[in-house]
Amino acid sequence: MATELPDIPKLHEALQLATLKCSERCVYQGAKWAAELLTSMAPLPATPTGELPPAYLHPLSTNKTEAALEAQEFSQYLLAKSYFDVKEYDRCSHVLEKCLSRKAVFLHLYSKYIAGEKRKDEASEMVLGPLDGAGTQNKEISYIMSVLQPKVDRKDGEKLSEDESFLAWLYGICLLKQKNETAARDALISSVIAYPYNWSAWQDLASTVDSLQDLNNILQRLPNNIMSNLFVLSTNQELYQTTEPIHSQLTDLLVIFPTSSWLKTQRALLYYHARDFEEADQIFDSLLAVDPYRLDYLDHYSNILYVME
Amino acid sequence: MATELPDIPKLHEALQLATLKCSERCVYQGAKWAAELLTSMAPLPATPTGELPPAYLHPLSTNKTEAALEAQEFSQYLLAKSYFDVKEYDRCSHVLEKCLSRKAVFLHLYSKYIAGEKRKDEASEMVLGPLDGAGTQNKEISYIMSVLQPKVDRKDGEKLSEDESFLAWLYGICLLKQKNETAARDALISSVIAYPYNWSAWQDLASTVDSLQDLNNILQRLPNNIMSNLFVLSTNQELYQTTEPIHSQLTDLLVIFPTSSWLKTQRALLYYHARDFEEADQIFDSLLAVDPYRLDYLDHYSNILYVME
Repeated sequence: MATELPDIPKLHEALQLATLKCSERCVYQGAKWAAELLTSMAPLPATPTGELPPAYLHPLSTNKTEAALEAQEFSQYLLAKSYFDVKEYDRCSHVLEKCLSRKAVFLHLYSKYIAGEKRKDEASEMVLGPLDGAGTQNKEISYIMSVLQPKVDRKDGEKLSEDESFLAWLYGICLLKQKNETAARDALISSVIAYPYNWSAWQDLASTVDSLQDLNNILQRLPNNIMSNLFVLSTNQELYQTTEPIHSQLTDLLVIFPTSSWLKTQRALLYYHARDFEEADQIFDSLLAVDPYRLDYLDHYSNILYVME
Repeated sequence: MATELPDIPKLHEALQLATLKCSERCVYQGAKWAAELLTSMAPLPATPTGELPPAYLHPLSTNKTEAALEAQEFSQYLLAKSYFDVKEYDRCSHVLEKCLSRKAVFLHLYSKYIAGEKRKDEASEMVLGPLDGAGTQNKEISYIMSVLQPKVDRKDGEKLSEDESFLAWLYGICLLKQKNETAARDALISSVIAYPYNWSAWQDLASTVDSLQDLNNILQRLPNNIMSNLFVLSTNQELYQTTEPIHSQLTDLLVIFPTSSWLKTQRALLYYHARDFEEADQIFDSLLAVDPYRLDYLDHYSNILYVME
């Protein structure tokens, strides 16, 4: 898959919007990834004083009915989000029970999912031993799936809307929890096709890839855009594909995102897999110099230092 | 202090903005309080389809220079906020080191403060015994104060701007940590005068009130608005002033916020202080029926149930 060269100001705006969209839905890891990619681009020329970046509006749905619902439910949504941010997940979910916009439905179910995960973790902590808790389940999953299934499971193959992409992602997560990998992959593919800028969905899709053949099967169903390029790169890296074409794709992507720590880490990991520890060490070293508080992939770096000693 | 009867649509908008402003600055308890008050008002008549609530814009500063800085620093700010939301507080602070808008300066220092509090808690957990950790300090305070002092400590008595109000609040918090209550009170008063909708600032101000005389001294320096009314009410309640005028002020406020759990809790606590446990119990009971996941003030409710047994 050749690297798609995007319109830079448009990509900039899309990543600002992605950060906001993820953040508004409390998908904080997705927001972080988008913001890191955004700030790794060369800055755009300054806008004339007083002109707002286009993303400065709350990213209201482009669908008119959805936008009207979102405006109508704005106060309830604000309350729910504020509960999520102080970790009152059940309360967040409860507030949105009767809301209709897809953004609100997502947060209603996502916070229920997080609440269920928390309870699951607490229940499995009660018993000792590394495997004792394995049977504990997130008890909210079946309710969440019963709401989502009619909304995102399109038998007719009709494309989902951008607003539905987050619902499909959550549906995919639930299917993964149920070990239904084939259906999960379908849901996750429909999610990233409908909205490619939620990196969390790509990561969950990557978790279903165990071989190059898996990857190739998925690729046939994906559009060629900057996000699918990044997905292909990181999945190849995870499959230990340390070939020249991968390195060269990485070089192309670094032209668009010259200071991206994430991309540089992919390079370091490629060297690491090829047992070129010196090169890998140098990259990790320089990343830490620029961003001393960075924790991502620190375990890999620590492995490299250990091996080199 | 008589209850100020505000313009309802304006108050509605101010509380939506307050939720956003607090949320944008990661002041999540403040956001929660504002959102709860917002949703306790009678809903406004529906706006014509497609028309956005005025608060739907990100609340950009009304000061032109600040607004231009905020727009310029938007991507850095998005990155920093995303770090805060995944609890990488030092990284959040680091990203904003060179930013100039007051919003960014606030988040730079606030995340440093939170990082310092976390380290303080971790350090005091190392030692056993309830008092052993008392000597542990937040080591970021002196840096934070050195940045804030020239920005908010106005010898000339000049009023702070809305953007500076959050800085003054943080300055007040640091002064409280240093047990400098008089200076803290000055900073907090200047904060709530500059921007009255950050409830966290009012709460910290309330923590400096030990007597009715304290309260009266502060009142002379405060404007009469809906937020100062709420402050007076809750501070009187905390001072066990279970008099008729307080009850009647509460009744006035419930006209504006008819379903406010917070206000109803104030009533319950007034009854509780007057040892009218039945009335208090009834209120807590009905609150829990409406909002079954509510945890606020549950300790008081539990006390009441214990006493009544």
